[in-house]
Amino acid sequence: MEQRLSVVTLGVADLDRARRFYEEGLGWTPSGGGSGEIVFFQTGASALALYPRAALAEEFIPPGGEASPGGIADSGGSEGFGGVTLAHNVRRREDVDLTLREAEAAGAAILKPAQDVFWGGYSGYFADPDGHPWEVVWNPHWEMNEDGGLILPG
Amino acid sequence: MEQRLSVVTLGVADLDRARRFYEEGLGWTPSGGGSGEIVFFQTGASALALYPRAALAEEFIPPGGEASPGGIADSGGSEGFGGVTLAHNVRRREDVDLTLREAEAAGAAILKPAQDVFWGGYSGYFADPDGHPWEVVWNPHWEMNEDGGLILPG
Repeated sequence: MEQRLSVVTLGVADLDRARRFYEEGLGWTPSGGGSGEIVFFQTGASALALYPRAALAEEFIPPGGEASPGGIADSGGSEGFGGVTLAHNVRRREDVDLTLREAEAAGAAILKPAQDVFWGGYSGYFADPDGHPWEVVWNPHWEMNEDGGLILPG
Repeated sequence: MEQRLSVVTLGVADLDRARRFYEEGLGWTPSGGGSGEIVFFQTGASALALYPRAALAEEFIPPGGEASPGGIADSGGSEGFGGVTLAHNVRRREDVDLTLREAEAAGAAILKPAQDVFWGGYSGYFADPDGHPWEVVWNPHWEMNEDGGLILPG
């Protein structure tokens, strides 16, 4: 797994309120490629995303909020899901499977096996030993520079 | 506040276990500037840090775990502290105060006013509208490139 953090996604209760805080309050400029459902900000060669917290949790938490294999649940608790996910973007679709297998071999819990996602990508989730969720994702709509840095649509 | 995410710190229960997972399991290389208390990995122009969760919480949570002005507490709950902090590094010591003031004017709650920290830096914390904690920090030991990217010690 290359040494890279591509996207940090913050779960938010009210997307419009959060967008206004970063955009109007702090003066940040959103990138293209977002929607009424998600907002992206380019932060150097990575991105900060704002996404409704419930939808973020549903990404990898089974309905009912039961603990997943990684011990992640949205029911709170100091070891529970804190509303932040990390993403590691890869260059090729097959790298998602390879990277998840590498993480599993390293002791990570697979939260969600790799699968096609509605926006055209392919992704899966693992949890590190402390339950921090990492998405391993191939996004055919986004460019990466030769160092693995992310170049969001303008 | 410039559009930048400098460091993502993951709270961990066992620093050595977490370090082994990223270093030996995933094959990442730690940077200099860490210690037995904290581990840094350069991730492009930003950094991922591993830090004991209790110490991370103590950074800005009053003893006893009572809710701080931003509603952050380590007692769990879906809006509680999730064991992840974000950091925005600035070039000059005085930029810490300026940036915290800007965030407060934008509606952020100040979790901890700017103050000198034991390792020689100067930092404070604010919470965004969803309670995600941001440290605004001046670190005289770290370099930044002209784009604001972080260059960790080798």
